Amino acid sequence: METVAIVGVGLIGGSFGLALKQAGFRGRVLGVSSERTIAAALARGAIDEAAGFEQAAARADLLYLAGPIGAILDLIPRLDALVRPGALVTDAGSTKRLICTAGRGLRRALFLGGHPMAGKERRGVEEADAELFRGRPYLLTPSAAEDLETPAAREFVEWIRRIGAEPRLLTPEEHDRIVALSSHLPQMLSTALASALSGCAEAGTVARAAGPGLHDMTRLALSGWDIWQDILETNRDEIVRALEMFEQRLQGLKQQLAGGLPEEEFRRGAQFARQIRNSG
Amino acid sequence: METVAIVGVGLIGGSFGLALKQAGFRGRVLGVSSERTIAAALARGAIDEAAGFEQAAARADLLYLAGPIGAILDLIPRLDALVRPGALVTDAGSTKRLICTAGRGLRRALFLGGHPMAGKERRGVEEADAELFRGRPYLLTPSAAEDLETPAAREFVEWIRRIGAEPRLLTPEEHDRIVALSSHLPQMLSTALASALSGCAEAGTVARAAGPGLHDMTRLALSGWDIWQDILETNRDEIVRALEMFEQRLQGLKQQLAGGLPEEEFRRGAQFARQIRNSG
Repeated sequence: METVAIVGVGLIGGSFGLALKQAGFRGRVLGVSSERTIAAALARGAIDEAAGFEQAAARADLLYLAGPIGAILDLIPRLDALVRPGALVTDAGSTKRLICTAGRGLRRALFLGGHPMAGKERRGVEEADAELFRGRPYLLTPSAAEDLETPAAREFVEWIRRIGAEPRLLTPEEHDRIVALSSHLPQMLSTALASALSGCAEAGTVARAAGPGLHDMTRLALSGWDIWQDILETNRDEIVRALEMFEQRLQGLKQQLAGGLPEEEFRRGAQFARQIRNSG
Repeated sequence: METVAIVGVGLIGGSFGLALKQAGFRGRVLGVSSERTIAAALARGAIDEAAGFEQAAARADLLYLAGPIGAILDLIPRLDALVRPGALVTDAGSTKRLICTAGRGLRRALFLGGHPMAGKERRGVEEADAELFRGRPYLLTPSAAEDLETPAAREFVEWIRRIGAEPRLLTPEEHDRIVALSSHLPQMLSTALASALSGCAEAGTVARAAGPGLHDMTRLALSGWDIWQDILETNRDEIVRALEMFEQRLQGLKQQLAGGLPEEEFRRGAQFARQIRNSG
């Protein structure tokens, strides 16, 4: 892998460039983004040079699609006419079923869906960080197990390990169900909580009385709609399912509270919260 | 105010002692706690000397009840026989209706309910921090406005300001409704989320795929049951009401998602999350 092209040099794309270099990548990193972003990415050292999409696709051994889901879905069908034969195409989109279906259509390149479970409140290449992926799961959703046995895929997975992330394999369907539970459901709850509180008669006092717990629980509500629009559109069924599962549990908790004390729910919740923190 | 007695020298009580001293308090700080905690509190410099509850009550100009709600409710009725006439009794309990009703029964001392909106994941005097209250609201729930006009109350409020906290006045009823929304509802959602996910077939994979968002949203689920048992028991009606309000909003969000996109909810949620962060 000598040339990497990052398409969409934001927080994730920029961090991937920085992380590769910190991990010892000595090849060339091309960046495809807006003029303003390219200038910032060059200044940060996240990329070595700017390129147009077609030029980048033609030169890259690894094409890393790090833009929004909608952009990734638009770009994949154009790649067969552009890529080097045998190149590896991957992405960092937050849902995988539609993207991997599109990726399976590629003939001249291998597509390997990916999703680094890393982020920050603030976006943009200005926030990029070579350490962003360290200790974080990096979900990979190959269409077939043998896809991972190609030299290009093996090398990419090796770089994922070198930047400190932990590769994990899932089918695109498993991925979308898992992230509906682990990421989209928490987002919906944070948004619903903040939105519900904003509609209360006591909203102003609640905002002024907010402690660290409410800060934690409303941090995701700050997420941008542009990102979430794509996620909700491409994973609606699984998110609705996750919401229904949660509603049932919340109703049970409320009923327990009305008639007694939900000690068992607290014990189970605490145990799972610890499990998350000990998993790795 | 020359002698302060802190009853229950844990995270909050210990931090109050440290904060007072850092803010220039030159009087004596007595601590009432278990032997082990007292040793740690003395080592940290959070208190100047250990005292029994009766001795502390007899000597203190300010009696700061920082133990669990249940302990505060047990101690208040004993105070009339013990306190210096004209002493100020305050507390740091997380619900205020029952505590302030008990406090109104005091004849020889003035009771002023309080609730610093500050905390940490870990408890105990080992975690105490002179900066814990800085920039945080400190809710006060006087039974009558004139309670705040006594010299002892004025001096206490002045120390709250000196330790960097922001005093805010509420009735006990307003307080319990506000914290049901700002603190107890978020806790219930975090517990319900973690508990619901722990019951999924995919629980193990979800735990291993957890990103920073799920970490944020399950941090409160780590809270100890011993604390929450008292809170739920003394604020059950308001918490159930807050849960019902939230359930309605979540159902609306789910319906919007099933048929379209909940852009307006995301916008409102983000706006409120920003409001929390800008309030002060």
